[in-house]
Amino acid sequence: MSAPKQDRSRATRQRLLEAAIACLAEYGWAGSTVAVVAERAGVSRGAAQHHFPTREDLFTAAVEYVAEERSAALRTLMPRGGPDRTRAVVGALVGLYTGPLFRAALQLWAAAAHEEQLRPRVTDLEARVGRESHRMAVELLGADEGCPGVRETVQGLLDMARGLGLADLLTDDSARRERVVEQWARILDGVLR
Amino acid sequence: MSAPKQDRSRATRQRLLEAAIACLAEYGWAGSTVAVVAERAGVSRGAAQHHFPTREDLFTAAVEYVAEERSAALRTLMPRGGPDRTRAVVGALVGLYTGPLFRAALQLWAAAAHEEQLRPRVTDLEARVGRESHRMAVELLGADEGCPGVRETVQGLLDMARGLGLADLLTDDSARRERVVEQWARILDGVLR
Repeated sequence: MSAPKQDRSRATRQRLLEAAIACLAEYGWAGSTVAVVAERAGVSRGAAQHHFPTREDLFTAAVEYVAEERSAALRTLMPRGGPDRTRAVVGALVGLYTGPLFRAALQLWAAAAHEEQLRPRVTDLEARVGRESHRMAVELLGADEGCPGVRETVQGLLDMARGLGLADLLTDDSARRERVVEQWARILDGVLR
Repeated sequence: MSAPKQDRSRATRQRLLEAAIACLAEYGWAGSTVAVVAERAGVSRGAAQHHFPTREDLFTAAVEYVAEERSAALRTLMPRGGPDRTRAVVGALVGLYTGPLFRAALQLWAAAAHEEQLRPRVTDLEARVGRESHRMAVELLGADEGCPGVRETVQGLLDMARGLGLADLLTDDSARRERVVEQWARILDGVLR
């Protein structure tokens, strides 16, 4: 492929992935067909199928792509140290689990619970994204996993982040979330130092 | 109504509620119609509609009923004191968010994110069940909400429980969950005493 053609192809792919997240978050799995996503992305159905042969390919790729984008952004943005570091890190980690990406991922999880074709794909995806989030949390918190209990402490924190994402699905939970983050950052500071 | 007739009616209602939870957990919202639930419960569609005029009535009542049953069972079962009390309480609270009830509730939440008719019902339900879980957690942990931070500590714990439920949706997460519960019970013991 020529370079401009490659660029166009990449741009099409990206538009499809972003439209897939938006559709999942807004309409759920049942309402998110490849045709609906292609239309939202302004791409022909044939082009969509060229990039993603199956519906499962499209949606799992979309969640993985956006999760990677967000992790990369978070790594770049985090300050290296300073006061209130733990508070900022906990807030940022929790932030990964709110907004359209989490909403989309949740729809995919919910569908995978009863769609046999989707299930193994989402299970794999969850394991990869989960490992990456854990690695990032350990690094940003400066946690020493050699110490007993530290691994489980960080895991529990990420479970809490996921639970906070769920609490934000139907109503704006940001004020309560802010206070929980504040308090749990304080607890973690005591436990990890 | 005569007493035996009332008993029969109550039994029918209960069968419908339990079948509704099983259907939601297994097939998701899209696959869970009143007809499917009535068939599973061995009840005529007319009888189902007599008890629950709309689909939203049936499913929100089902989640609320099972949540109340489980809370009541938990209150009765918990030992009043003794060693490892916090560990037992945290384990039991986390247990509320795994299994068929949480699976069913999650399908209802996911559907409510894009079904306008369902959304206000599920939002109300979530608030009621959430308040009740919080009250129970405070009581079982013997936490003093007069102390600064205690309220948010308990809230974060319940968020963690919800996140652990989500982690158990597609794969058996019980071994990891056990370790997270162990560690966070230890942390909470330090924070709450």
